[in-house]
Amino acid sequence: MQRPLDVVTLGHAIVDVLSPSEDALVESFGLAKGTMTLIDHEDAEKIYSRLGPSTEMSGGSAANTAACLASLGASVEFVGTVRDDTLGTVFCHDIRAAGVRFSRPPRRDGPGTGRCLIMVTPDAEKTMCTSLGIGAHLGSADIDTGVVAGARVLYLEGYLCGLPESDGGVEAAVTAAREAGTLVSLSLSDPLWVELHGDALDSLLDRVDILFANEQEACGITGTTDVHAAVAALGRRCPTVTVTRGPLGSITAAEGEVAEVPAVAVESLRDTTGAGDSYAAGFLDGVVRGADPERCARMGTLAAAEVVSHFGARPLASLSALMEKAGLLS
Amino acid sequence: MQRPLDVVTLGHAIVDVLSPSEDALVESFGLAKGTMTLIDHEDAEKIYSRLGPSTEMSGGSAANTAACLASLGASVEFVGTVRDDTLGTVFCHDIRAAGVRFSRPPRRDGPGTGRCLIMVTPDAEKTMCTSLGIGAHLGSADIDTGVVAGARVLYLEGYLCGLPESDGGVEAAVTAAREAGTLVSLSLSDPLWVELHGDALDSLLDRVDILFANEQEACGITGTTDVHAAVAALGRRCPTVTVTRGPLGSITAAEGEVAEVPAVAVESLRDTTGAGDSYAAGFLDGVVRGADPERCARMGTLAAAEVVSHFGARPLASLSALMEKAGLLS
Repeated sequence: MQRPLDVVTLGHAIVDVLSPSEDALVESFGLAKGTMTLIDHEDAEKIYSRLGPSTEMSGGSAANTAACLASLGASVEFVGTVRDDTLGTVFCHDIRAAGVRFSRPPRRDGPGTGRCLIMVTPDAEKTMCTSLGIGAHLGSADIDTGVVAGARVLYLEGYLCGLPESDGGVEAAVTAAREAGTLVSLSLSDPLWVELHGDALDSLLDRVDILFANEQEACGITGTTDVHAAVAALGRRCPTVTVTRGPLGSITAAEGEVAEVPAVAVESLRDTTGAGDSYAAGFLDGVVRGADPERCARMGTLAAAEVVSHFGARPLASLSALMEKAGLLS
Repeated sequence: MQRPLDVVTLGHAIVDVLSPSEDALVESFGLAKGTMTLIDHEDAEKIYSRLGPSTEMSGGSAANTAACLASLGASVEFVGTVRDDTLGTVFCHDIRAAGVRFSRPPRRDGPGTGRCLIMVTPDAEKTMCTSLGIGAHLGSADIDTGVVAGARVLYLEGYLCGLPESDGGVEAAVTAAREAGTLVSLSLSDPLWVELHGDALDSLLDRVDILFANEQEACGITGTTDVHAAVAALGRRCPTVTVTRGPLGSITAAEGEVAEVPAVAVESLRDTTGAGDSYAAGFLDGVVRGADPERCARMGTLAAAEVVSHFGARPLASLSALMEKAGLLS
């Protein structure tokens, strides 16, 4: 018999195409550094043709979080959609090889498996262009409400909000979670996404137990430029709010307390892809283990430090061993 | 107008699937570490299903050499075969983005684009299982003899020898090169390949101007266990022979002289995939620049040092800048 689930993560199944790029190239596409832009197949081809040699690795925000959670020792299932094509095969292989349950069979028709062109500039920042493909299609029929109800935590990437193709899936999952007492957690995902789909994200907030955001996203959704004011405003709506600030660490408001946790020094910052995803994983693993909010934040910070120290969004080292070594599991 | 070609490289077009693996996993497949084995699609699926999370990057021995040559500033064309599938698109993109000419359109039928499962063990050694797919098909009709005749050097990977599907292509290319005075260079590729296809490789030797081998391959094809004896024997058949010995450096016999060049210290040896391919590129770039054999060997050594210091078989740094800095281009 399988262990009961700690976390179900719901998101776009994506294979990343990572390419080291100069700032000038990113600018030439008219893209804002550090954001994610949805593009169609044609634009994807145009941009890809101008990128340098690339590396393909499985990605997707909530899928990365699931891979990190598995590395932390949590039992986790990912829910997302792929096609029966090469990239779909790669995605299925990698998520399962990471120790994540992924039970949905690939779709036999519709657009191809989603991919994301990620330009990593010399400052380790990533700029993403995503062609969601079949990954966007996540309806209520795709949600096994029994699985959601049986998990401790449901985690949603914000990228799902504001897209008609996935509204049904989000609604079904959140409803099932709320009815069963499964904690609902959400990441605001991306500053530009908050700008474009702030209303959809905002309409979900009052049903969210644990909210993840970075500084720009938190300020963007609350219409303020002061991160502490943003945390306070979000804290009035969600029981737990944790906001990451890159090298400045994080601020977490929970149970009437505010905890500020410093960043972990990273020897060589290589690629910030997956920083937020891995932070969320570390934090949620703490929640599942019954850690207090400050320790959850420390666990998120340490997980993120591993992921940004190398190329790619998923951990190379065992995150549970890192936590153990740092004394965060005792 | 395009620059005339320095080098044409001919080989299997392959996309690598790189997976960090423990020695026990490699052993469980009954594979000899450090070798390449051809497998069929079914076995590829079986092995892939047991590998951990992987990274996909363009590979192929002679294609890697071409990418390194471009990074060295040489004008280079790669000749090989891909299908019009996802991996074929990746291969075409990466080889062109590396600055290599690749003019052959993808095939519209036949098996899929070749791929190679590469298990990288903690000692940085690689063990490869290749499913050649359409990449094996390289007939005489695939060779533009005018292109070969116009180049300074033709480079062949030994993996092409002994396969009926590529015999025609090899023969057409070598014949065109010999007639035009294009130098013919060959890599023995792999110890196991030498064992299996030694006759086919041997039958080509008397038409080879520059021969590349590692210690095991050189000893294997000459039936000796003494590397110096192997170099001497091969030197009686090929005007230039260069044999690599990993941390022991290389031995080059040319123009009646033997030069031994030490290895370059590598700060952190990560993955030996592409070591021989990049050595060949550095050496050939020296040949094209008119360097003496010892300097050619030094250039090969330095190129290989860059490639083994990171995951993946193609250079991340500019090899011409490395050579410049080391004073090898003056």
